[in-house]
Amino acid sequence: MDVTQDYILKNKQRFLDELFELLRIPSVSADSKHKDDMVATANFICNSFLKAGADKAQVMQTDGHPVVYAEKILDPSLPTILVYGHYDVQPPDPLELWTSPPFEPVIKTTDIHPEGAIFARGSCDDKGQVWMHVKAFEAMVSSSELPCNVKFMIEGEEEVGSPNLGPFCRQHKDLLKADVILVSDTGIIANDTPSIDAGLRGLSYVEVEVTGANRDLHSGIYGGAVANPINVLCEMIASLKDANKHITIPGFYDDLLELSSEERAALGKTPFDLEAYKQDLDINDIEGEAGYTTIERTGIRPTLDVNGIWGGYIGEGAKTVLPSKAYAKISMRLVPHQRPEAITALFQKYFEAIAPASVTVKVKPHHGGKPVVVPTNSLEYKAAEMAMKKTFGKDPIPTRSGGSIPIIALFEEVLGIKSVLMGFGLDSDALHSPNEHFGLFNFYKGIETIPYYYQYYSQLKK
Amino acid sequence: MDVTQDYILKNKQRFLDELFELLRIPSVSADSKHKDDMVATANFICNSFLKAGADKAQVMQTDGHPVVYAEKILDPSLPTILVYGHYDVQPPDPLELWTSPPFEPVIKTTDIHPEGAIFARGSCDDKGQVWMHVKAFEAMVSSSELPCNVKFMIEGEEEVGSPNLGPFCRQHKDLLKADVILVSDTGIIANDTPSIDAGLRGLSYVEVEVTGANRDLHSGIYGGAVANPINVLCEMIASLKDANKHITIPGFYDDLLELSSEERAALGKTPFDLEAYKQDLDINDIEGEAGYTTIERTGIRPTLDVNGIWGGYIGEGAKTVLPSKAYAKISMRLVPHQRPEAITALFQKYFEAIAPASVTVKVKPHHGGKPVVVPTNSLEYKAAEMAMKKTFGKDPIPTRSGGSIPIIALFEEVLGIKSVLMGFGLDSDALHSPNEHFGLFNFYKGIETIPYYYQYYSQLKK
Repeated sequence: MDVTQDYILKNKQRFLDELFELLRIPSVSADSKHKDDMVATANFICNSFLKAGADKAQVMQTDGHPVVYAEKILDPSLPTILVYGHYDVQPPDPLELWTSPPFEPVIKTTDIHPEGAIFARGSCDDKGQVWMHVKAFEAMVSSSELPCNVKFMIEGEEEVGSPNLGPFCRQHKDLLKADVILVSDTGIIANDTPSIDAGLRGLSYVEVEVTGANRDLHSGIYGGAVANPINVLCEMIASLKDANKHITIPGFYDDLLELSSEERAALGKTPFDLEAYKQDLDINDIEGEAGYTTIERTGIRPTLDVNGIWGGYIGEGAKTVLPSKAYAKISMRLVPHQRPEAITALFQKYFEAIAPASVTVKVKPHHGGKPVVVPTNSLEYKAAEMAMKKTFGKDPIPTRSGGSIPIIALFEEVLGIKSVLMGFGLDSDALHSPNEHFGLFNFYKGIETIPYYYQYYSQLKK
Repeated sequence: MDVTQDYILKNKQRFLDELFELLRIPSVSADSKHKDDMVATANFICNSFLKAGADKAQVMQTDGHPVVYAEKILDPSLPTILVYGHYDVQPPDPLELWTSPPFEPVIKTTDIHPEGAIFARGSCDDKGQVWMHVKAFEAMVSSSELPCNVKFMIEGEEEVGSPNLGPFCRQHKDLLKADVILVSDTGIIANDTPSIDAGLRGLSYVEVEVTGANRDLHSGIYGGAVANPINVLCEMIASLKDANKHITIPGFYDDLLELSSEERAALGKTPFDLEAYKQDLDINDIEGEAGYTTIERTGIRPTLDVNGIWGGYIGEGAKTVLPSKAYAKISMRLVPHQRPEAITALFQKYFEAIAPASVTVKVKPHHGGKPVVVPTNSLEYKAAEMAMKKTFGKDPIPTRSGGSIPIIALFEEVLGIKSVLMGFGLDSDALHSPNEHFGLFNFYKGIETIPYYYQYYSQLKK
């Protein structure tokens, strides 16, 4: 891999310039006004695969945003790695909290990234990590050091729950045939503490609507006598957890696989500095389920969080309205073996049951995703462990990520292929937040590590 | 008053056309982008007083939106009536719920207004009712039947708590000298059931901000381990009332003057049809403080309502953000002798006390207003009673309105003048809501009744 690594070193600046170009396209999948930007981004990535040396690359239509597919088949008898990533990004709002515009990438230094980091929406999640793969591939092809076949499937709907990737996989099962799926959409513990995600939480996401009277009312004339849907919604949300922050939905924990005390002890070895954590977030205290550590709360325990709430008058000044409706977006992170459809149904049943007679409620399910576990003794995990050890100089720690990549469970179900989650971001990179960034160290470390994954996986697979 | 009434009949259509013109100016005081519209509205009203026969009329500056002042002094020895009203309106949102644009008035019939009603923001609250006064004045002057001196003070900040009217009154005490203040900014029970407000609730209005981490976080990575300010805000709001919908803020009820059982019995005679009430609002059940009737809940009991709430992602689709901040606008309607400053302070103290250590909270007081009682045996009340009996053909019922006109208490304090609340709207007129309207019956009944108030008040005052 020396020729490959040398090629990477020599082309560093160009790789970055190209990524900047990609980050400038606002590929926000949740917002229909960015439909054209989604197509432009897909075309950009498709062309980049051809330039990098793919045999073929194409933008493939779905019922939503398109999927970019590319491949290079050296020899059908060699192992095949399928790389999955996504080119869509989260909405950038609240815009006023960005210190530079979200779609005008710039390099800025931070305490954690003294060598500089790329500030832009999608820099880490996931355009920057997709670009590591495109460039690692280019380097291997250009150096004639590609040790196996490779396929790429880069979708445009991950941030909205990949509603069309299931059908896409079912329709193109043959095309997507591979030995392993390699995904870089997660992170490491720190730049000097590499880690690999051995598990991902699942997700159930709902939107709720609480309706009181059939119209907005004057709070002076009706206040006190008619249910206020905002007050009611707050009471209903408050009652979804008890004083121990245990979720109160009946049956919620029924399918949950409790970890053994050995497994919990192993997880307890993850380095964690509570004071540094609180300082980074600027909070006086943490908050979570009684009886579990922070690492456990974010890795092996399910959650219920309100991701958005709105109702009544939210403009400048004061308005004494008693609104007709109030809304919330609520997500639940799930762990094995909780099933998103079942949890969504339990939520809906309970939420409807606790609504007082003075209001009506609607629960609208959004996307869901199953939780995932990647066994640390599997071949695909081992190859990632070896690759990271090679480039970081130390063994990566297996972690349980709190995030969800719902499609991973689907890959196994539909395509019958295991995934490995070798990501290079940091938790502090402000994913989904204003000022998302991706360390230059991390970007280049990813490009450097990926070719070794190819090498070790091909060797182990023999 | 026959010549006056005849003049009104002959000019009905013109009065309405002029009101339409006034309603077309979007005088939203809460929104700074309507600053020029506020000035245009003030000028429109100022000119209308001059045309109607005022000796003088002027737009007077304040630190906020201007006040329109006008007067006609026949003889200093005659009684002087000061008419108060406001030309500003509530914000029209949510716009999508209006069946016709809020600033394009149209006449539509409703079940309650088969003769037609004027649909527009401000049609009832309070531009339409101000216009009744301008036109009644015009009719009396034109007919040479004005029995007393009259002054007008029409402000532009009622909907934002009249922050500059107190200073204005203090500065112009002499100019505003009068025997009584006549206000039409309330309503009657029904078009066949006239009533006069013998009391108004006061108001305390606060905006709260709950902050968790210093930035929006990925709910997968941090969810379950860090306080979510939306969940926390919901829990805090829920804890502001107990299961009986009694407000839990310590000291909240301390200054409240309980009504005697005789007074409650008298109030109990107010006609009220619960089934019709529920049907009109399209609700299955009412909700309010245990132990009190709907009339009591809206008239003699204090309330706590969330008028607006927002936080996190509220756009299209799903975003798994754990937001840094959540906000709510909360108002409390007050009854004698609760004092707004004291209640706001109690709220703030309690809200800060119940905040968990995992968040920080800020409480920002908006405007407040003292509750008001108008004795039914007072001269100013009697004159209104006689005027309404004359035009409705039956005795008006004294009611306690749930709404607040904070400035009424201030008038008494600063100017030493009692007010009388003779309004002509209906509770069902959608004040502060989409599709606000004002019955043509009510508009003309107001113009017809006001001259009699002048007549009877002048007679009683002699």
